[in-house]
Amino acid sequence: MQGERAETAGQGDADEAATHAIVELAGRARASSRVLARATRAQKDGALVALADALVAASPEILAGNALDLERGRASGMSGGLLDRLALDDARIRAIADSLREVAALPDPIGAVVRGSTLANGLRLRQLRVPMGVIGVIYEARPNVTVDVAGLALKSGNAVLLRGGSAAESSNEAIIGTMRAALEAYGLPADLVQSIDEYGRAGARALMRARGHVDLVVPRGGAGLIQTVVRESRVPVIETGVGNCHVFVDSSAELDMALDIIINSKTHRVGVCNAAETLLVHADAADAFLPAALAELSQRGVRLHGDERTRSAAAAGIEVLEATHEDWATEYLDYEIAVRVVDDLDQALEHIREFSTGHTEAIVTSSLQAAERFTAEVDAAAVIVNASTRFTDGGQFGLGAELGISTQKLHARGPMGLEELTTTKWVVTGDGQIRS
Amino acid sequence: MQGERAETAGQGDADEAATHAIVELAGRARASSRVLARATRAQKDGALVALADALVAASPEILAGNALDLERGRASGMSGGLLDRLALDDARIRAIADSLREVAALPDPIGAVVRGSTLANGLRLRQLRVPMGVIGVIYEARPNVTVDVAGLALKSGNAVLLRGGSAAESSNEAIIGTMRAALEAYGLPADLVQSIDEYGRAGARALMRARGHVDLVVPRGGAGLIQTVVRESRVPVIETGVGNCHVFVDSSAELDMALDIIINSKTHRVGVCNAAETLLVHADAADAFLPAALAELSQRGVRLHGDERTRSAAAAGIEVLEATHEDWATEYLDYEIAVRVVDDLDQALEHIREFSTGHTEAIVTSSLQAAERFTAEVDAAAVIVNASTRFTDGGQFGLGAELGISTQKLHARGPMGLEELTTTKWVVTGDGQIRS
Repeated sequence: MQGERAETAGQGDADEAATHAIVELAGRARASSRVLARATRAQKDGALVALADALVAASPEILAGNALDLERGRASGMSGGLLDRLALDDARIRAIADSLREVAALPDPIGAVVRGSTLANGLRLRQLRVPMGVIGVIYEARPNVTVDVAGLALKSGNAVLLRGGSAAESSNEAIIGTMRAALEAYGLPADLVQSIDEYGRAGARALMRARGHVDLVVPRGGAGLIQTVVRESRVPVIETGVGNCHVFVDSSAELDMALDIIINSKTHRVGVCNAAETLLVHADAADAFLPAALAELSQRGVRLHGDERTRSAAAAGIEVLEATHEDWATEYLDYEIAVRVVDDLDQALEHIREFSTGHTEAIVTSSLQAAERFTAEVDAAAVIVNASTRFTDGGQFGLGAELGISTQKLHARGPMGLEELTTTKWVVTGDGQIRS
Repeated sequence: MQGERAETAGQGDADEAATHAIVELAGRARASSRVLARATRAQKDGALVALADALVAASPEILAGNALDLERGRASGMSGGLLDRLALDDARIRAIADSLREVAALPDPIGAVVRGSTLANGLRLRQLRVPMGVIGVIYEARPNVTVDVAGLALKSGNAVLLRGGSAAESSNEAIIGTMRAALEAYGLPADLVQSIDEYGRAGARALMRARGHVDLVVPRGGAGLIQTVVRESRVPVIETGVGNCHVFVDSSAELDMALDIIINSKTHRVGVCNAAETLLVHADAADAFLPAALAELSQRGVRLHGDERTRSAAAAGIEVLEATHEDWATEYLDYEIAVRVVDDLDQALEHIREFSTGHTEAIVTSSLQAAERFTAEVDAAAVIVNASTRFTDGGQFGLGAELGISTQKLHARGPMGLEELTTTKWVVTGDGQIRS
C-alpha cells in the first residue's frame, strides 16, 4: 500500500511538473502563432521551401537519429510493419521534403471571406478564415508525420506541440531541431514547432488537459491511442482514423468492375484506414460473383471469413472460415476480409449501420435508385459509388497533404487538409450603430 | 464510511440505469432522425408551423405547468431574474411560437453542396451538408430554449435530447408533450424531441458519456454548467456563452459615438453574454471622455470600478471603486463595469489578450490603422469596430434563431444557427476507378 501511494504521489508530481511545462510551451507557441498570423502567404511558402531544403541538407543527422531508433526498435522486438513505418533513407527524406513543397503550392486558406453581408442597419459583416492558434498532435513512431503536421500547421498559420512517441524519439529530435533552426534562419519563431516528448506520458496527459492554452488536439494512430485521447482530453479533439469500411456489390453491379474494386479496396494497401474490411454481396449476384471473387482474394493471400451462404458459394479448395460477430466488427488492417451475402440493399444498409465506423462505405451498382439510396442513407465521412474505398484521402481529393481522416461529425469530417486547421472570426464594422 | 460506500453504490446503480435509458432514447432519436433526413424542406417547414400553432393552442396547459414551476421557484427562494426567465404568459408563448415560424422561413441548410470537383481520373466529388444526427442540449430554467432548440434541430434535420433542468420541469413537460403530439399528427416521429429530465443528474451524466450514440452536446447556461459539461463530456461539446467583453475607446474615437456605444453595450441588457464588462480608454482620450462617460454610466445605475487614472478622472461625486485583478476577470452580468486607462492600443490589446473570454471585443476609433490592427490581432468570435457589442447575436447577424454563441474555435465560432447544427458528407461517384 505504501509503495503504491508513493508511486501515485510520484505520478502526481510528474503530472504537475509536466502541466507547468506544457502550459509554458503552449504560451510560447501562442506568442509564435501571433507572429505567424501576421506573415504573408509569400513568407509562409518561402519558409516551407526553406524547411524542405534544410531537411534534405540535414539528411545525415536525421538518418543517424533514425538508426538509433531502429536499433532500439529491433532490440525491443518491434514488428516489421512498424519498423518499416519508422525507417528513413535518403529517398524518403527527399519525399518528405517534397511534401512540404507541395503544401507551399496549395492555396492559403487564411483570410478567405467565408460569408459576408451588409445588414439593414448598415453594419458590414464578414466571417473570415483565421488560424486556430495552437494545435497538439499525438502520434506514434512515424517521423514523416512530424514534417507533414508542421508543414500543414505552418501554412494554416498555427503553432504545433508534437508528441511523437518514444519509438521515434531520436529521429524526431533531429527533424524538429532542423526545422526550428530553419524557421529561425528564415526569420520566423522557432517555437512554432515544439516537441513535448521529453515530458513523456505525463506531458501527453498535460497536453490533453491544457484547455484554453491549446485549441485542438488530434490523435493520429491506432484505435487504442485514439480512444485514450478521446476519453482523457479536455481540449477539443478530432477523432481520426478507425475505418471498418464496407464494399457492397449490388445485384445490378458490373461484376468485372466489382471485382477490380474489391481487390483494390482490400489489397492495394492493407494497413490503412481506407482499406475495405468487409464485402457485402447482394444474394442475386452471389452465384455469379462470389466464386471468382473469393478465389481471386484467396490467391492474393487474403484470409477469408464468411457467413453460411458465402461459404457454400466458394469454389472447392478455397477456404472460407466461419465469420463471427467479431469479424463483422473488426478492422483487420491485414490480408483478411469478412464476406456476407445479404438479401437486398436494405439488409446491406442495416449491416453497415450496425458495424460502420463512419469512415468510408462503397457500393458497386448500375442502379441509379440504389446509388441514391446508398449515398443518402449511409452515415459516413465518405460514401463512394463505383470506385475503390482507397480514394478517401486528402491527396486524392485534391486537398493536398492531410493531417488525418476525421470520423467524427464536429468541425471536420473526412480528410483533414489546411482548411480543417482553421477557424473563423466575425468582423463587424459600423459607424456608431447601437441596439434599440 | 459504510453510509458513504452505500451512497456511492446507489449513485453507481442510478448511473447504470440512466446510461441504459439514455442509450435507448438516443437510439430512438437516431431512428427518428433518419426519417427526418428524408423529409423535404416543405415538410420540415410545415411541421414547424404546425408546432407553432399547437403551442399557441396549448397555452392553458403550458401556463398551468409554468405556474407550478414558478410556485416551486418562489418557495425555494429563486432570484427575481431567474423567475423572470422562467415565467411565461400568453404573449411570451406567442413570441416563442413566432420564432418557430421564423425558423421555417429560413433557407434549408441541408443538401447544400459545400465543395465539389471532378478529379483528373474522372471521379466526381461533392461535399454535401447533412444533418448531425442526434444532439443533446443541457440548459437551465428557460422554457423558451426548449422550443428554440427543437425548432432549429428540426429544420436542420436533427433529433434532440433535452435536459431542461428541474426548475422548469412542469413547463417543459407541457411544451415537449405538445410538440411531440404535433409532430405525430403531422406525420413525423414524436421521438425527434425527447426530454431526459426524468433521469435527473444521472441522466445528464449519461448523456455526456453517450459517445457514438449522441453526436454533439451543447451546454447553454452559466459558467458553472458549461465547465461541468466540458470537463465531463466524452461526446463532442460546443462551449457557449461566457462573455467578458471589452470596449476600447481609442484616442481618435468620436467621443459622442463612443459614449453611445459603451452605454448601449453595458446597459441595453445587463444579464447577457454580449454585454460589455470592461471599458478601456486610451490615455489621450481619458480627460475628454471619462468624466462624462463615468457620470452617464453612474446615472444609469452602473457601479464603477476603476484603476488609479480612471478614479482621478471621475468628476466630483461620482464614486469609482478601486478595481482589483478580479474585476478585470469578472463577467458581472449586472449593472457593474470595470474601467481602465491604457497607454495606447498595444496596452489595450495586451489587456484584452489577458482577460478576454473570446466572445466579443469592440473598438471605437477613427483610425483605419487602429481598426485593422484591432480586428487582426484580437482573438475572439466577434470583433466589432464602431458599434455596440450587443450585435453579436444570431438574429442580429441574420442567421435566424441561435442555439447559443460558441466561444470555442472548433466547428462553430460565434452565434450558432442552422448551419452550425450540420456536418458534411463526401459523396464520390465513379465508373470503376481504382488506385494504382
